[in-house]
Amino acid sequence: MQIEPQAFDRVLSSMCTDPHPAARDAAEQFLATNPGDPGTYPNVAALEDDAIALLGEIAGLDDPAGYITSGGTEANIQAVRIARERADTRSPNVVMPESGHFSFRKAADLLGVELRVVPTDDRHRVDLEAVRASVDDDTALVIGVAGTTEYGRVDPIPELGEIAHAAGAMLHVDAAWGGFVLPFTDHEWHFGHAAVDTMAIDPHKMGQAAVPAGGLLVRSPALLDELAVDTPYLESTSQATLTGTRSGAGVASAVAAMEALWPEGYRSQYVRSQNNATWLADALEKRGYRVVDPVLPLVAADVPRSTFDALRGAGWRISRTATGELRIVCMPHVSREMLASFIGDLDRLEVRASVPVASDD
Amino acid sequence: MQIEPQAFDRVLSSMCTDPHPAARDAAEQFLATNPGDPGTYPNVAALEDDAIALLGEIAGLDDPAGYITSGGTEANIQAVRIARERADTRSPNVVMPESGHFSFRKAADLLGVELRVVPTDDRHRVDLEAVRASVDDDTALVIGVAGTTEYGRVDPIPELGEIAHAAGAMLHVDAAWGGFVLPFTDHEWHFGHAAVDTMAIDPHKMGQAAVPAGGLLVRSPALLDELAVDTPYLESTSQATLTGTRSGAGVASAVAAMEALWPEGYRSQYVRSQNNATWLADALEKRGYRVVDPVLPLVAADVPRSTFDALRGAGWRISRTATGELRIVCMPHVSREMLASFIGDLDRLEVRASVPVASDD
Repeated sequence: MQIEPQAFDRVLSSMCTDPHPAARDAAEQFLATNPGDPGTYPNVAALEDDAIALLGEIAGLDDPAGYITSGGTEANIQAVRIARERADTRSPNVVMPESGHFSFRKAADLLGVELRVVPTDDRHRVDLEAVRASVDDDTALVIGVAGTTEYGRVDPIPELGEIAHAAGAMLHVDAAWGGFVLPFTDHEWHFGHAAVDTMAIDPHKMGQAAVPAGGLLVRSPALLDELAVDTPYLESTSQATLTGTRSGAGVASAVAAMEALWPEGYRSQYVRSQNNATWLADALEKRGYRVVDPVLPLVAADVPRSTFDALRGAGWRISRTATGELRIVCMPHVSREMLASFIGDLDRLEVRASVPVASDD
Repeated sequence: MQIEPQAFDRVLSSMCTDPHPAARDAAEQFLATNPGDPGTYPNVAALEDDAIALLGEIAGLDDPAGYITSGGTEANIQAVRIARERADTRSPNVVMPESGHFSFRKAADLLGVELRVVPTDDRHRVDLEAVRASVDDDTALVIGVAGTTEYGRVDPIPELGEIAHAAGAMLHVDAAWGGFVLPFTDHEWHFGHAAVDTMAIDPHKMGQAAVPAGGLLVRSPALLDELAVDTPYLESTSQATLTGTRSGAGVASAVAAMEALWPEGYRSQYVRSQNNATWLADALEKRGYRVVDPVLPLVAADVPRSTFDALRGAGWRISRTATGELRIVCMPHVSREMLASFIGDLDRLEVRASVPVASDD
């Protein structure tokens, strides 16, 4: 095998990161285990209980229930599935802000539910009036995002909970990326703050675990019963996960990262990342770009396509929002030095892009 | 973290195994990569192309298309999903032998398709007459199993292809476990043998890759389009996978295992495993147990529940079929020595189970 993994020194667009050393060690140790078969692999199954207990602490959930998923997509699909099973209608719908992750489109397609997408306001948070206007008797689920993929914004979760429950629907919070930074902010986002029923919260994003380690939390274990299928030939009797065989490496890695970092390590990482985001936003604003204020450690800025392409050509792993803004996620591996080097390249390439190429003669 | 992974020296029930050393190394090297985001992680995305090319060789598929899944369950769900999307009906059904994996029940529940379960014959292969009687104009998919979970049997795949296509349905072959041993047998099971449309074939089972590395193969790339959703904010434009973030470790590990072992390493492993299965079947038969003949390296035998429980109590990781038979999978880590030790414990515990316990006075 001639190919090597990319280094992280130019990765600015990923919501994954270089795992914490303890998380990497745990992943390597548990590579050959399958928490999907707890009768055969009891030790990693016990670790999964620890992982859920720790996630529950982070997300304000007493007596937490849930499991370690392959990632946020699986957690989001399963949340929609629980709501569909619970809904007393043959044509369930799900109400989601336009800032919701594309995995909900996947979920709606898979599960045959109608997805009602409502606009966000000028602060990129869901428009509550639009949510109120969209829910009806067939609404199974309202989705709020706590840390949006494109702008790092937090929807008004308590208000969404009120709207959802008044309509007889459930509330799902997608904190897949935000869940490990929000505890150090004043945002109201979790089970303790609002009538949240289910949540996606991913150790393998800001939690610094190795992929694959997503998290699905549910307010009551009974909600998992909606997902259960019988498992003949396994010594366990049923399975509530979307996948069958699962990664023990992800589970062990999640526990190791959370044991090493919750809460103080995550707090100082949040401060570092948020400071970096603020620094980057300032640097971009000074250069005249329109910047979306980084409420969480994620910066979006209106950089011309030609400059964007030149930066990608220079090896920077960057991506764009749906409306074309440059988007940079200040993950733990993203240092001030990297950002300074990026801004240096931006200055260099932006100048070049605006200077006409001299002809040869 | 005080918990350690279990050793493999008593694991007899798993369809996963200790990864090949090259596969383990590759997994460790690619722990922090995400093939679900090829714009950011191009190297592991390139490796995934290699993985699919190798899987195509193994499964007799020219110009192979597909992707590395989280496991057989995801591949099976996606196959049902493709068929549902392709079917020209509002109430699609799927016809499956009773030996089909429980992941198809999960798929049917998720996707809202009717699952028609047909019986198997006295050789544990699907009853073709029952399949013919079950297909109709609404049949989207016929499922055949090439290496069943409980008995290691191979359904008549070419005949299933004829029935499926005559009914305007697709044929999916579940070779999740069997795909890495069947190339060394006379069975007709793959794209080159029959009108197979989609297949599950898992490197992380008999392929000796690290979890999570399942495989979905499709006869034509157009079939993947049925699964695609748009991916705003990623530099790639669409995603055909069920999950979003995926394990680069699994992808790299699959390539490393297949490069190291295909075909000669897998052939000698098959011979070793099959010889072990034959030896175990003989040993059990000599002791008077009814044994289901191991067509592939998987042995089922009618051992009393008390003996089964005593063996589990002695630390053996064994499981039972739906009808209660002891089931042992001769994976690469299962040595003759392990099996001899297991039979030794069986003799010891079986005797004890049948000797009444003496009272104290």
